[in-house]
Amino acid sequence: MIGIGSGDPEQLTLQAVRVLSGLDVVLVLDKGEAKSELVDLRHEICSRHIARPYRVLTVTDPERDRAAADYPGAVRDWYDARADLIEAALRDEVSPGENVGILVWGDPALYDSTLRVLDRVQQRGTVELTHEVIPGITSLQTLAARHRVTFTGVGAPVHVTTGRRLAAEGMPAELDDVLVMLDGSAAFAGLDDPDLDIYWGAYLGMPGEVLVAGDLQERKAEIVALRAEHRERHGWIMDSYLLHRRRA
Amino acid sequence: MIGIGSGDPEQLTLQAVRVLSGLDVVLVLDKGEAKSELVDLRHEICSRHIARPYRVLTVTDPERDRAAADYPGAVRDWYDARADLIEAALRDEVSPGENVGILVWGDPALYDSTLRVLDRVQQRGTVELTHEVIPGITSLQTLAARHRVTFTGVGAPVHVTTGRRLAAEGMPAELDDVLVMLDGSAAFAGLDDPDLDIYWGAYLGMPGEVLVAGDLQERKAEIVALRAEHRERHGWIMDSYLLHRRRA
Repeated sequence: MIGIGSGDPEQLTLQAVRVLSGLDVVLVLDKGEAKSELVDLRHEICSRHIARPYRVLTVTDPERDRAAADYPGAVRDWYDARADLIEAALRDEVSPGENVGILVWGDPALYDSTLRVLDRVQQRGTVELTHEVIPGITSLQTLAARHRVTFTGVGAPVHVTTGRRLAAEGMPAELDDVLVMLDGSAAFAGLDDPDLDIYWGAYLGMPGEVLVAGDLQERKAEIVALRAEHRERHGWIMDSYLLHRRRA
Repeated sequence: MIGIGSGDPEQLTLQAVRVLSGLDVVLVLDKGEAKSELVDLRHEICSRHIARPYRVLTVTDPERDRAAADYPGAVRDWYDARADLIEAALRDEVSPGENVGILVWGDPALYDSTLRVLDRVQQRGTVELTHEVIPGITSLQTLAARHRVTFTGVGAPVHVTTGRRLAAEGMPAELDDVLVMLDGSAAFAGLDDPDLDIYWGAYLGMPGEVLVAGDLQERKAEIVALRAEHRERHGWIMDSYLLHRRRA
């Protein structure tokens, strides 16, 4: 399982390059989305770094019930369905001793389900496999680098959460720094805190990268408009942001 | 400012390698510690990747008042003293147009002060400089990769904090996942929560890497002993861990 960074092929680590070069098979989890730029980019990474002829196995993601009231339950069902498909692909289309790479945007540890799905496959015991995880640069790290800011104040904590949680819980009063991913609904725009700065970025590391930084209340309308405009233009958007509380 | 990963030279990104290759000067912030393995590793990275003859400027870190009651105040004074030294080095020993690299373990965004010190230098306006930040793999990402775990549950938050904070505040009741760095005093050993797992690692990515995972109450004595043993052997230790709350 190879973290391949947030969209800039130069974010590959030397370790990722070495592991890629020895692959026989690339297992692609096709999310069925219109993110053709990401598909092209992944293809570019494979063709540039995999040294020998390789096969691509595409597993089409099962539909997920996004409207389910039992959100964790729906996600678990979806994991099981995904594990079925990966198990079948490994069993039927990979020979013993072959090296299979699963390329993960960002880092497999951060808001990615592949590791949990692979654990399920392994627990079933029907396919013999060992796996190794190669860390990758996340969009949050690219965000901080582009804005040239740190995640944390001196000795202070940072909280990483989702747009869904931020919308439900607001900016925690005891925290000065919160990083937000997976925000489909611009949860930042619902915050009224007058003392927050936002460091926002979309398509981080990619040619279409967009950055905005400043006082949240002053900039939020602009960011909401930019998100709509770019989502329309690309057919998709992936963005993340840091909320930082200014202290007197 | 180049994030160079957590101790494994293979964690350099292709971007870091490209930027390193164009450096004229490496600015080393010498922490005056006995971490000779880290000094050797940094030297190895430079000599392997910097393409042309380069100079090394060593700035010896000022003493920091670690016993000060006003911790943030003491840290700010130390930043100012550090900015003085970097400003002098850039002004007196770097020619216009030269490329200077500051190599940062992990990622410059996470518990690293270099960016804040450089901001101070820039605000003073006495040295003309532009700077770029190259993200790097953090020890937390290496930790998760080695243990093959994720930072986050499904759609759940993760909190990144310091040993000092964990000791003062305990494991927050509303959180299932907390990542801890900069823990000089084994704060995990003071936690009595019966439902926590720990994923611990030291010297992550280095030849002396040590890993322990399991129920916190069952393993904490072993980890405390390992930390003491390895700190004695190496003369230093850098470790981090994930605390994960098991839910029924």
